[in-house]
Amino acid sequence: MENTATGQALEKTGYGFSREVPLAFDEAVQRTREALQADGFGVLSEIRMDEKFKEKLGVDFRKYVILGACNPPLAYKVVQQDINIGLLLPCNVVVYATDTADKSVVAAIDVNSMMSIVGDSAEISEVAGVVNEKLQHALRQI
Amino acid sequence: MENTATGQALEKTGYGFSREVPLAFDEAVQRTREALQADGFGVLSEIRMDEKFKEKLGVDFRKYVILGACNPPLAYKVVQQDINIGLLLPCNVVVYATDTADKSVVAAIDVNSMMSIVGDSAEISEVAGVVNEKLQHALRQI
Repeated sequence: MENTATGQALEKTGYGFSREVPLAFDEAVQRTREALQADGFGVLSEIRMDEKFKEKLGVDFRKYVILGACNPPLAYKVVQQDINIGLLLPCNVVVYATDTADKSVVAAIDVNSMMSIVGDSAEISEVAGVVNEKLQHALRQI
Repeated sequence: MENTATGQALEKTGYGFSREVPLAFDEAVQRTREALQADGFGVLSEIRMDEKFKEKLGVDFRKYVILGACNPPLAYKVVQQDINIGLLLPCNVVVYATDTADKSVVAAIDVNSMMSIVGDSAEISEVAGVVNEKLQHALRQI
């Protein structure tokens, strides 16, 4: 990990990008929401997986939230190209606690990777690239 | 489209499965929620895309909802295999209005297709197959 001109470096992890941030879970979630908003994303859904697991299965799990991030103009553009694209929206950003109280992990979906299952659409690929840059920019600023 | 022993047939659409149902939008959404619940899915998020587009962009769009469906035991199983899998959860089901008032379309993500970007994991592939069958069963019952 190193500082870059545009913020902290990200780790590529298969189908996403992630960073360990020096923040406790609640603060990491708040900072993530702010960073997403600054890059044009609204958070349209928020799912606390650990609370669901506790409620439905009675098991303890690390604090873990799935945030559904959406840039309305770009979402509007792609849904006009493919009416079923909502199956792949919004773009997920997850925040979860680590074993160290003041460190959390933030990860965002690799939109290029996810959109690869859509097939050939120059318009959708272009939007995916833009969204990917915005998501990664947001993550680097947390 | 034909009747089958397990309900109405589905159309495969790239990265999803869909059906036109003889229901107005609101009823289609209600019936979809009930069908998902009957097959073990909770709806953890609900995003009305048309309302977001109206609010943020001032544009009119057909009624369109993204439901985030989650089967807690199966989600718990996969997140233990891959901590970042929340980037691909919950499984989306969309319902949208058509040009005919008493017809709507319901579509579900093809979980096998979506999980193809995760890479090789026998456990995750197995769960994806189970979730796919449950989602498709639910759609056929609406």
